[in-house]
Amino acid sequence: MQRIVVLAGGIGGARFLRGLKSAAPEADITVIGNTGDDIHLFGLKVCPDLDTVMYTLGGGIHEDQGWGRAGETFAVKEELAAYGVGPEWFGLGDKDFATHIVRTQMLGAGYPLSAVTEALCARWNPGVRLLPMTDDRVETHVLIDTADLDGSSGDDAESGRRAVHFQEYWVRLRASVPAHAVVPVGADVAKPGPGVLEAIADADVVLFPPSNPVVSVGTILAVPGIREGIADADVPVVGLSPIVGNAPVRGMADKVLSAVGVETTAAAVAQHYGSGLLDGWLVDTVDAGSVQAVEEAGIRCRAVPLMMKDTEATALMARQALELAEEVRA
Amino acid sequence: MQRIVVLAGGIGGARFLRGLKSAAPEADITVIGNTGDDIHLFGLKVCPDLDTVMYTLGGGIHEDQGWGRAGETFAVKEELAAYGVGPEWFGLGDKDFATHIVRTQMLGAGYPLSAVTEALCARWNPGVRLLPMTDDRVETHVLIDTADLDGSSGDDAESGRRAVHFQEYWVRLRASVPAHAVVPVGADVAKPGPGVLEAIADADVVLFPPSNPVVSVGTILAVPGIREGIADADVPVVGLSPIVGNAPVRGMADKVLSAVGVETTAAAVAQHYGSGLLDGWLVDTVDAGSVQAVEEAGIRCRAVPLMMKDTEATALMARQALELAEEVRA
Repeated sequence: MQRIVVLAGGIGGARFLRGLKSAAPEADITVIGNTGDDIHLFGLKVCPDLDTVMYTLGGGIHEDQGWGRAGETFAVKEELAAYGVGPEWFGLGDKDFATHIVRTQMLGAGYPLSAVTEALCARWNPGVRLLPMTDDRVETHVLIDTADLDGSSGDDAESGRRAVHFQEYWVRLRASVPAHAVVPVGADVAKPGPGVLEAIADADVVLFPPSNPVVSVGTILAVPGIREGIADADVPVVGLSPIVGNAPVRGMADKVLSAVGVETTAAAVAQHYGSGLLDGWLVDTVDAGSVQAVEEAGIRCRAVPLMMKDTEATALMARQALELAEEVRA
Repeated sequence: MQRIVVLAGGIGGARFLRGLKSAAPEADITVIGNTGDDIHLFGLKVCPDLDTVMYTLGGGIHEDQGWGRAGETFAVKEELAAYGVGPEWFGLGDKDFATHIVRTQMLGAGYPLSAVTEALCARWNPGVRLLPMTDDRVETHVLIDTADLDGSSGDDAESGRRAVHFQEYWVRLRASVPAHAVVPVGADVAKPGPGVLEAIADADVVLFPPSNPVVSVGTILAVPGIREGIADADVPVVGLSPIVGNAPVRGMADKVLSAVGVETTAAAVAQHYGSGLLDGWLVDTVDAGSVQAVEEAGIRCRAVPLMMKDTEATALMARQALELAEEVRA
């Protein structure tokens, strides 16, 4: 049985995984999930990326939206607003609240996030093993200009810049203001979660789905040991470009790419990962012109359609990633 | 302005308070609320009696039910059940969950329950000052036969008895099994909440509404200093019998009265409070025959209609309690 390890963020990663399961139904898939976008809201621990993977693969996702639960209601959120308790910009539905309540209760009882995630997945049966990248607290912060934050002032007024939680940057500000740096706070002292390094060491292939290379895959790689484990595993590592025609397929990856000094092109993202990590790279057919530059950087590259418009198209992408892995291995 | 202090439990206390506000719209009313029925559910702090008072006086109560919010939905509870997380016997609705989420978040941030209750009341404007009897943790437990608890076994098998949380006894078991003792765990070391003793000392009259004399008013009186404060305050203390025609008007007070060795009669409850505490006692007209016994016990007593069938009837009861207080004072 083929053992596949996938580093996944939220929507892009989750949809890719659905295609991968369809393309390789017999494979043993381990997902290392990003937890850098976790946030405490209303005293509850919310893990947006883990939940998006769990809900998507478990059949509970709001399909059009890509995150949150299908058929949601918002009674709790409306009541919280009536109490004047925010933030109001983060859309938690009633069903979703139950997940965060169970998670918070279990964490409070002393279970690590990995055990909690396993317990939640016992209901959803995602058909993959979903492992948080770490059980330690990591929170991605984004450095922005203080002037871009309404009503902001205080200690940091001198520097003129301020770090906000990634969700505040992404959801509240809609990535509409310049990001000067992206800092996965806590990642430098975090340990890979239980099973993470073992899964990488035992993998036949490692895939980077078209997730955000900075705040999703990049955050996972920032946990000491994970990047090294992948680089040392001596198995094909193949990624799929989230950038098509010099723009993110979805989301606002260009904003955080520029914060880390990477151009918004399929080739630049491959070079950002680097040939020390990445063996193969799929770019979209519209970016066929960049294949040569990627290969010159020491990364095997193919141009194929990369729009995940349905599970079939996504399964084809996954199959081509696995084929490129075999080509690299040979 | 007349300063009235009321010791209140849940439904009975809350409905009486609505009548009292109508009877004495200009009065300054301080409610000392029972917190012995508080319970942690799903990692959240739930204060059923405080919330029943707050929702009832604030116009958010489910009128027919007497507890919980009007127009509730139950998405969170259904999802928790889908995760296999219980208990399922405690009916928390989505709107109600929001209250417990806000409360738990504030407690977690370090605010005492009294400050949290004040913050919640800022939304509901109950028209009274609602003070928890204590900021310390008190939990009423009920001692029952182990055999009456499904599937119970273990360490306590020898004694054959086991203490369960009051809510488990009251809501899950519906008080249908014998109660051998009622223990307000923690009350002996609890301190009265901020403002409680001051309100008692400054009161013109203290009222015991027709709340449960054991698990509501009794628990409040079990906090050291409160009973003494009332007895020493040198103001009329008048109660209304929750027992009419030798049965509780609502609820299952007879079950917990027998646990403390008190007969289910209006006179026995008055004697249980005792003339050292109680100056006046209202019994229902059907219990007119017990007036003499109560007066012989040193407590002024009148027989008046005590069915809280609507706010008008309840306001009349409150007015008669205040009149009895003046009679006692004179």
